Amino acid sequence: MFHERLAATQEVVEAHLMQVLAPRGDLPVVEAMRYAVSGGKRLRAFLVLEGARLHGVAVADALWAASAIEAVHAYSLVHDDLPAMDDDDLRRGLPTVHRKWDEATAILAGDALQTLAFEMLTSSDLSPARQVALVHSLALASGDRGMVRGQALDMLAEGRALSLTEVTDLQAGKTGALIRWSAQAGPIMADADADILDTYADALGLAFQIADDLLDVEGDAETVGKAVGKDAERGKATFVSLLGVEGARRRAQELVDKACAALSPYGGEAESLRQAARFVISRQT
Amino acid sequence: MFHERLAATQEVVEAHLMQVLAPRGDLPVVEAMRYAVSGGKRLRAFLVLEGARLHGVAVADALWAASAIEAVHAYSLVHDDLPAMDDDDLRRGLPTVHRKWDEATAILAGDALQTLAFEMLTSSDLSPARQVALVHSLALASGDRGMVRGQALDMLAEGRALSLTEVTDLQAGKTGALIRWSAQAGPIMADADADILDTYADALGLAFQIADDLLDVEGDAETVGKAVGKDAERGKATFVSLLGVEGARRRAQELVDKACAALSPYGGEAESLRQAARFVISRQT
Repeated sequence: MFHERLAATQEVVEAHLMQVLAPRGDLPVVEAMRYAVSGGKRLRAFLVLEGARLHGVAVADALWAASAIEAVHAYSLVHDDLPAMDDDDLRRGLPTVHRKWDEATAILAGDALQTLAFEMLTSSDLSPARQVALVHSLALASGDRGMVRGQALDMLAEGRALSLTEVTDLQAGKTGALIRWSAQAGPIMADADADILDTYADALGLAFQIADDLLDVEGDAETVGKAVGKDAERGKATFVSLLGVEGARRRAQELVDKACAALSPYGGEAESLRQAARFVISRQT
Repeated sequence: MFHERLAATQEVVEAHLMQVLAPRGDLPVVEAMRYAVSGGKRLRAFLVLEGARLHGVAVADALWAASAIEAVHAYSLVHDDLPAMDDDDLRRGLPTVHRKWDEATAILAGDALQTLAFEMLTSSDLSPARQVALVHSLALASGDRGMVRGQALDMLAEGRALSLTEVTDLQAGKTGALIRWSAQAGPIMADADADILDTYADALGLAFQIADDLLDVEGDAETVGKAVGKDAERGKATFVSLLGVEGARRRAQELVDKACAALSPYGGEAESLRQAARFVISRQT
């Protein structure tokens, strides 16, 4: 069920993003935006759409929020891949934006993708109050108290020996904040309580990052679609360097169990979210 | 009157931005945000506050929009100054963010300043419908169909011989789009017609850019606070290269006359906006 729904998510979100971006001409910066926002697992969009479904939000409205979080995620990757940041040549098995075009285009395309997210959040038929709630919460999740904070801590961490608490804090921002927002978006759109999905998303986000750290150690670049072995090379503390491979794998499984348990109030309706959590630690890319 | 009001704008906007950013800790990225958003003429904030005053919008509400446009302006400067873009060492007479910190911090601080703008637009006591209108219009003005479009055209223009029409189109995005939004924000907050201030702002934005081109030719770096003579060095077509110094000066004056004339429905109440237009072409920085 999960795999069908994830595939469906990929299809509708891709189509929606292309529909929005298609009429915007062929300047390199716009080509780069379309390129950057294409492909990917669409896990965040999936969480938005599932959270929306659980709370009775119309798909047509939820699609704007699902596309918005994918635009923010894409912007963060484009900027994160820049030479001054992680300096990556490969993303999703393809050249990164600054390799395919140039650094200036990558900076501008990332900037415009962030802007596009807020444009899309204010393009649905949801009530203005709900749109404002989405904009405000996404700004908090992605800014200097959310994702950017995690990225900034990550930069400061290179070459330093971080504790498990510090790595957890860093990752709660860097990857956790957008995953948490994705799970909150459904309840926010329905003006409903987000506590259950918060608990689910926090555990999921951490499990996701541990799986990423494991892939960096155990994956091969071709399958993963990006360079691997970079954390060790840079002396970065990760869940694997701190817990060992077996310890990290065990911790990820515990988090997935916790995430699934949190969903019990939703009953069988949340089964695909449970499967998503299991998928997150079994994925090869 | 204008100079007192501009000075007052500088004071209240600076205080408001610092109040928002003060409690956010001392990570380099946050220090860089505070640094980047400090100083400047605050012309855009002034336009927001004057437009708000003309339409009876409370200063407390307008201050959020005025601070938001200054945050977007600051983000665009931080990214524009990067080595991959304009490669500038000096801004407002001080080292640019990537010179004072590093490129990664400049990229992240710019990103977070853009996010902050949308956070602030959804922080006022205005009705949700007005907040949504501000967010949506600012996204359109600053994204790939507004400011970023102008920046992208500017990149493509280096070494090419642009026509006057092309330079005008480019600048309507690069500097014009945010100036136009600043003038629209007051009417938007009051749910009023923005046509008069649109006409004013379009003429003002163009006059502003012509004045900038003149400063690049005639100003000295110490007074202007940034490098000068860069356009000619790079073979960039500007209003001055296309119209000559005297022709550009004349065109700027015509635009200021047009901007002032457009304000007649507001009568004496708009006098400080007229003075602002005259200031724009007489400024030395």
